[in-house]
Amino acid sequence: MIKTTNAASSTTPNVSANPAPITIAGMTELVHEAARRYVLADSSADARERITVKGVADFVTEVDTGVQSFLKAALADRWPHVAFLGEENGEQHADFAGLTWVLDPIDGTTNLIHDFRHSAISLALLDGDATIKAVVYQPFSGETFTAEAGHGAYLDGRRIHVSGETDMGKALVNVGTSPYHHELAERNFDIMRRVFVDSADIRRTGSAALDLAYVACGRADAYFEMDIKLWDYAAGRLLVTEAGGMVGDWEGRDLGHRLETGVLAGTPAIFAALRDRYLA
Amino acid sequence: MIKTTNAASSTTPNVSANPAPITIAGMTELVHEAARRYVLADSSADARERITVKGVADFVTEVDTGVQSFLKAALADRWPHVAFLGEENGEQHADFAGLTWVLDPIDGTTNLIHDFRHSAISLALLDGDATIKAVVYQPFSGETFTAEAGHGAYLDGRRIHVSGETDMGKALVNVGTSPYHHELAERNFDIMRRVFVDSADIRRTGSAALDLAYVACGRADAYFEMDIKLWDYAAGRLLVTEAGGMVGDWEGRDLGHRLETGVLAGTPAIFAALRDRYLA
Repeated sequence: MIKTTNAASSTTPNVSANPAPITIAGMTELVHEAARRYVLADSSADARERITVKGVADFVTEVDTGVQSFLKAALADRWPHVAFLGEENGEQHADFAGLTWVLDPIDGTTNLIHDFRHSAISLALLDGDATIKAVVYQPFSGETFTAEAGHGAYLDGRRIHVSGETDMGKALVNVGTSPYHHELAERNFDIMRRVFVDSADIRRTGSAALDLAYVACGRADAYFEMDIKLWDYAAGRLLVTEAGGMVGDWEGRDLGHRLETGVLAGTPAIFAALRDRYLA
Repeated sequence: MIKTTNAASSTTPNVSANPAPITIAGMTELVHEAARRYVLADSSADARERITVKGVADFVTEVDTGVQSFLKAALADRWPHVAFLGEENGEQHADFAGLTWVLDPIDGTTNLIHDFRHSAISLALLDGDATIKAVVYQPFSGETFTAEAGHGAYLDGRRIHVSGETDMGKALVNVGTSPYHHELAERNFDIMRRVFVDSADIRRTGSAALDLAYVACGRADAYFEMDIKLWDYAAGRLLVTEAGGMVGDWEGRDLGHRLETGVLAGTPAIFAALRDRYLA
């Protein structure tokens, strides 16, 4: 460490009139580090073994709050002017007046508990209502999805696009079950069945962030879920729109910064078909 | 090549009174080679790009028949005394009198077409009605699931076990939609909804062989589908039973070598709960 004669700046290193620019590379670096420390930690033991030792609740707490605490501090350290909202620790509120981080430390918690190997860290930067930068990292496949408003969407640095599918009969559709709202199940499964019969098939992966990322790179042609949270969709929606797709609620309206909402995403044609024929 | 004075044996090299023993290592080697040649071939271009160039039908034909033709010939070359049944090329029949290979060259074809990266090559060796050796290889994750009757189930050489889950409320359940039988959809989605409401959640991955493999290694606690084919379940069922789980039809009866059937698999407790309360 280099000593300085400027006592004020050395005691308040994080308060700067000119914070470093927020870059996708910088965000990605921190997300990867969080995954390495808290998700992939102790990689000789799989999730099942860690759960056996600690119990489910403690295991989830350890990973979820580990990722969130680390990222909240690391982001504040680099970019102290940005507000923070995350799923854990009662930090689910912000005023959205300026720049706001929106973090889901583990999207796909049930998958993590079962070592299903399909979960993600989802980090979005909002400017007011709109997501302007996004990183979705899948630690088990090692895939990193990124997007920047006006500059496209990428998978491991390679430009991605939605599939361009226009034929509902050929569409592969990711569906959400809204597992915390069993009272919605009757309507939800009726819609899923109707979409299934008219499409190539449905998929249910258990991670909304990855469902959106998969639409962005053309692995699925659409995704919808009746009830998800801001941190589930905040990053994924920018991946989809920057990849040429559409995102909205079930009526197709902009999501803004709604804390809880229905979400629909897809290629322009499949988005419109799902909205008009099944959801709205 | 070593010349021999025995003209008969040099012109019929595959007919031997003492064929080499059939080993999991030998089966795995051939399955990996098939994947390298026909599934992961041309890896600079993803499935979407290959489809754009060739069209869906030709792409699927190229991969499916490529894997099957290669494996049929390579298996016959090493073990000429074993009959062969595969999904493609009208080779779906056998008399099951002795040893029979049962191959699904690509389990999860819709996923392959969409580059969803969740498909498998599934190779089973049946002795009469029973699967005695099994290899399920997921080329995109690189995971190889193997089992040998009486000798346990393995993932990449490491012993695996079903989860041991006994609580339906905590169970993660893989479900099949039987996408080629839309007339079953109403009953099927009604069952899926009832299971969903009583369990942790459902998953729909699009690969029956991997759904069974995931039950075997505890990533899911059960799997059921109303209508699948012999090549979909032939290898996966041995993975599950050798990992300590149960497999049968929806009434719990042995599957034998049925060409088309409902399938249920799970930990002993969840298998029994699904059979008794939802399926039978």
